[in-house]
Amino acid sequence: AGDAAAGRKKAAQSCAACHGIDGLAKLPNAANLAGESVYYLDRQLKAFRSGDRKDENMSVVAKALSDADIADLVAWYSSIEVTVTLPKK
Amino acid sequence: AGDAAAGRKKAAQSCAACHGIDGLAKLPNAANLAGESVYYLDRQLKAFRSGDRKDENMSVVAKALSDADIADLVAWYSSIEVTVTLPKK
Repeated sequence: AGDAAAGRKKAAQSCAACHGIDGLAKLPNAANLAGESVYYLDRQLKAFRSGDRKDENMSVVAKALSDADIADLVAWYSSIEVTVTLPKK
Repeated sequence: AGDAAAGRKKAAQSCAACHGIDGLAKLPNAANLAGESVYYLDRQLKAFRSGDRKDENMSVVAKALSDADIADLVAWYSSIEVTVTLPKK
């Protein structure tokens, strides 16, 4: 498993501008990452890196990530707790 | 814009099993949808429908969605408020 503290530092460099350190998207074309499962985050980052999934930004960012970077980033963002409030009917 | 209440009903039929009505993934291979931007959700659903983005489940689910369905689902999930709690260092 990755190291969440190292992932937080890596996120500050590579992810926070669009996704935030807190995993709440700062731009409309970015996803929230907070509390996503390890499986989902790992699969998406590797799909962007391999080209299975394409995005003008993420395809570039993911190319520079090692397996260790991915494990740490995934550990960080999956460790963030998410609570939701549904709109009144 | 879509109708969030109609989107909630549609979500109960088509999305809740994996993504929850509350937009918190119920399965590790599903994404959280709560509080994602209208832009992001619309773009991903249409990418799954067109085949630009591929997933064994979503490619099938999205094929059956009309533009109106997508607008309503997007209105529902984007209207859910998300708060996060970062892990202590």
